Amino acid sequence: MMIEQIKSPADLKGLTVTEMEQLAAEIRQLLIAKLSKHGGHCGPNLGMVEATIALHFVFNSPVDKLVFDVSHQSYAHKMLTGRVEAFLSEEHYDDVSGYTEPSESAHDHFIIGHTSTAVSLAGGLAKGRDLRGESGNVIAVVGDGSLSGGEALEGLDWAAELGSNFIIVVNDNQMSIAENHGGLYANLAELRRTKGASECNLFRAMGLDYVYVDRGNDIASLIEAFSRVKDIDHPIVVHINTLKGMGYAPAVSDKERWHWTMPFDAATGQPLAQEVETYNELTARHLLQRMKADKSICAITAGTPGTWGWTPERRAEAGRQYVDVGIAEEHAVALASGIAKAGGKPVFGVASSFVQRAYDQVSQDLCINDNPATLLVLWGSLMSLNDVTHLCHFDIPLLCNIPNLVYLAPTNREEYLAMLDWSIDYREHPVAIRVPVVPIAAAEYPVDTDYSELHHYQVVKRGSEVAVLALGNFFQMGASVVRLLQAHGVDATLINPRFISGVDADLLHELAADHSVVVTLEDGVLDGGFGEKIARFYGPTAVKTLCYGARKQFVDRYSRSEFLAANRLVDTMIADDIFDLMMRDIY
Amino acid sequence: MMIEQIKSPADLKGLTVTEMEQLAAEIRQLLIAKLSKHGGHCGPNLGMVEATIALHFVFNSPVDKLVFDVSHQSYAHKMLTGRVEAFLSEEHYDDVSGYTEPSESAHDHFIIGHTSTAVSLAGGLAKGRDLRGESGNVIAVVGDGSLSGGEALEGLDWAAELGSNFIIVVNDNQMSIAENHGGLYANLAELRRTKGASECNLFRAMGLDYVYVDRGNDIASLIEAFSRVKDIDHPIVVHINTLKGMGYAPAVSDKERWHWTMPFDAATGQPLAQEVETYNELTARHLLQRMKADKSICAITAGTPGTWGWTPERRAEAGRQYVDVGIAEEHAVALASGIAKAGGKPVFGVASSFVQRAYDQVSQDLCINDNPATLLVLWGSLMSLNDVTHLCHFDIPLLCNIPNLVYLAPTNREEYLAMLDWSIDYREHPVAIRVPVVPIAAAEYPVDTDYSELHHYQVVKRGSEVAVLALGNFFQMGASVVRLLQAHGVDATLINPRFISGVDADLLHELAADHSVVVTLEDGVLDGGFGEKIARFYGPTAVKTLCYGARKQFVDRYSRSEFLAANRLVDTMIADDIFDLMMRDIY
Repeated sequence: MMIEQIKSPADLKGLTVTEMEQLAAEIRQLLIAKLSKHGGHCGPNLGMVEATIALHFVFNSPVDKLVFDVSHQSYAHKMLTGRVEAFLSEEHYDDVSGYTEPSESAHDHFIIGHTSTAVSLAGGLAKGRDLRGESGNVIAVVGDGSLSGGEALEGLDWAAELGSNFIIVVNDNQMSIAENHGGLYANLAELRRTKGASECNLFRAMGLDYVYVDRGNDIASLIEAFSRVKDIDHPIVVHINTLKGMGYAPAVSDKERWHWTMPFDAATGQPLAQEVETYNELTARHLLQRMKADKSICAITAGTPGTWGWTPERRAEAGRQYVDVGIAEEHAVALASGIAKAGGKPVFGVASSFVQRAYDQVSQDLCINDNPATLLVLWGSLMSLNDVTHLCHFDIPLLCNIPNLVYLAPTNREEYLAMLDWSIDYREHPVAIRVPVVPIAAAEYPVDTDYSELHHYQVVKRGSEVAVLALGNFFQMGASVVRLLQAHGVDATLINPRFISGVDADLLHELAADHSVVVTLEDGVLDGGFGEKIARFYGPTAVKTLCYGARKQFVDRYSRSEFLAANRLVDTMIADDIFDLMMRDIY
Repeated sequence: MMIEQIKSPADLKGLTVTEMEQLAAEIRQLLIAKLSKHGGHCGPNLGMVEATIALHFVFNSPVDKLVFDVSHQSYAHKMLTGRVEAFLSEEHYDDVSGYTEPSESAHDHFIIGHTSTAVSLAGGLAKGRDLRGESGNVIAVVGDGSLSGGEALEGLDWAAELGSNFIIVVNDNQMSIAENHGGLYANLAELRRTKGASECNLFRAMGLDYVYVDRGNDIASLIEAFSRVKDIDHPIVVHINTLKGMGYAPAVSDKERWHWTMPFDAATGQPLAQEVETYNELTARHLLQRMKADKSICAITAGTPGTWGWTPERRAEAGRQYVDVGIAEEHAVALASGIAKAGGKPVFGVASSFVQRAYDQVSQDLCINDNPATLLVLWGSLMSLNDVTHLCHFDIPLLCNIPNLVYLAPTNREEYLAMLDWSIDYREHPVAIRVPVVPIAAAEYPVDTDYSELHHYQVVKRGSEVAVLALGNFFQMGASVVRLLQAHGVDATLINPRFISGVDADLLHELAADHSVVVTLEDGVLDGGFGEKIARFYGPTAVKTLCYGARKQFVDRYSRSEFLAANRLVDTMIADDIFDLMMRDIY
């Protein structure tokens, strides 16, 4: 294959357009082959093949710097910058990450996984270049729904002031993960319709120069446009009209399903694994049922309906009680606060990794105002997403230290639905619920479904000497620790704290009477989290505390079982530690 | 005065335009009288007097709902909604807050102090109204520089999809706190120049309907425009051209200085109190000096240059090494990351309360990429800003739990400048420095200015039995506690931890040999902060810990001394607690 000869972008420079078109076909073939076996971002990469080739043909990376937004659209870029092996042979598939990664290549400048960041990051490269008196083009590649994010809009607004070379390629594939939402996409449509000639132009209104490329999957057109803006002396937007999923029929016909895919049969597009129902799926089903009886309930997503069961069918059924704000988490939280203030019952579902984008809105717009909205935090766990940019390890410290917010950690199906129902109707405070990531399970003990007395923990089994406070996803691990202790003659207490955001001082005081060790387990980073509150509480007392969770670090594509073991998050290890500590006390 | 007769907006309805103009003059008189004695937001309120009168004349608050962005421009609104007493007599000045406050009046719907939130919050009221099948106008009043904030742009983009009544009044006073920055302001200028006729229109590009009011301080024009959009069936922007500081000559001629003011002589505009030099002021002076020798240093502000000494003169001197991105904290952090990646040395100064707006950018754009930018966190303290929307209590838990970020807490002048110099040139990790809020003081002991060994605390005085870890602004309180203990025969250890973001495990282990009590002091909320890490560290040991800081709560306009006492943040109280704990151990 020709692609095997491309060791660096320099090897592209001598190719004809026809040869590059052949190269594009090969890249697509490799993309589909790898994605069908490995899974990954499909539609965004298929749509960007020609533009990536043209960028590397025209510009001189890494002197000229390409920054890909979200960077899940950088697979072709990886193939053209010395990393094709990771797409050619299955044993090398995991040699590269699914995002740009400076440790892999000098052609990658940032680790980027969250959307809407590239204009600002690349803008920094351009400003740094100017400060140091250097030269070269800086190119940000944005789009695929990320323009609606506040950071992208802040970046576009600022870019006009840079006053030097800066090229912003807007990959307009008419999609976000789901369909696009927001008024600006109507302007993009108008620009497509008028072939860029419309006087009303978002980018020009932001103070930026602008060119339009109608055939965004045509290499010759792209080369012509990129050549025209190369070495330009001011910021400019190059708006390219591409087709998400280009070259793979199933991905073109159902763009949302094919944004990111699990392994599939390349011939038919059928997924290889059967999907099992999760708590996320259960959520949309339950909410839809509640919505029919209560028209003031409103589900809100920030461009990621599929992550919590909002299929196109369910969305249609929910009608105006379903709101997709596009990728705009800040707006989503403030909107929910406003709806709650007006007497509505908003439920905003958002991944742990993405709720980070709205800390200030949770604190200021929602919690200072104490409006009773519900946040559902999805995937919050050490065991869910394991790309460094998508870690869901930090939501506990992020949310549990904000005043007024009640943060709940359900441990089983009955408890989750009871908390969700309670939260929807509760009018006193905003409530966040950490939706379980473990397989759906029924309760193994009578669940206390009264949450009105805040920060009241449930004692599942009353023992003595050792108490285990096992939060959310780690409740089962805690129960297992208690069984191990039991097997060695220690009749430990097992507690489901239920509330992440506060300490049950009465219970903790009571435990101190006949417990010498209190153990906490939480499925997230330890620093700033739940266990430390318990450690502080018992700090001045004779009760000893052991806190389990992950140490503070960024980790990438880790083995979940190895990661848990490295943090001693294994029932036998924890039981050993407890015995060690008890022995130390005795001798 | 006529204003004394206005008990509610209903009392406006019978007035003629001439009478309302008289009312505007009275409101200005009261504003200047109160501001000159009390301080507060000056320019924004003076510019909005006519628009506020016209809004209340045309609309029927609180059935029609007015939401003021930032809400520091709501003083005239307060006077017209039953709260004029708080502007008439000095003893009532503090009866109302400087922001909208639902607990004061049914005409206020949210507590708002951060910028760029009103479109989203008001959008929520509109959506809630629609869900519940209610009616009435919802009006968001935005502007005064807040359009550049990502949340505002996300909100505008979304608003187009609401499809029902929603009126967005853009108060275009051509200013942020300092001059406006960002390309969109050029579009606003173009719209003013063309009296709203320009085809290129940011708001239309966001999918919104639009009208322009050229004479934004003319009551008749405003009434005409607001009447036209009242009860409209879709979202619309009303762009009004106002004059910041209108009616008070000093505030018109120096808009930045008069955005917010301390008490002043109303006749001359001269401030009543002499300004003392702070660490903030020291920062710009020091940076400017360093910049002259190193052209790769770049100071970044998000629309608040004055808060850290960037006077117009210093800005001019810094030239392109000074960047004001406008109110856009997310962009500022990502920009800093990019500049650092390109080899520049960016320093972003941002208030503790506002760094909250960029948590995800600090985590993803900066810390995952581990780029060596410097963040200066201003005002981080329980003793600085005391409006609930501007609390600077939360930056420690927010930042100290993010991997890779080195967070430093200097305690004196020499240490602060040494940390700043070190951070500027350090290339390993991003560094945040909590700029002291206490009066500038020289070191009272030899300062260890080597920070290369991360998370290495400085032992200032080695004793035994009790160790006091006194962080940043509370170092002096810790020293005082140690002196009180000394006076009672306890030779305690005094430690300046210097690093907020990590634990000096070697030192803590060593202390355990001859200390039974370890005390932590931090000038922020306790939950998720520094002390809890120490408590967790000693959890499994015999060492007892006492953590001092503020309990997790939102507080508003509190007495600083009472607040500290309520949290036992008083040297004598802490010493008492320590003695109590030591006694308990003995008996």
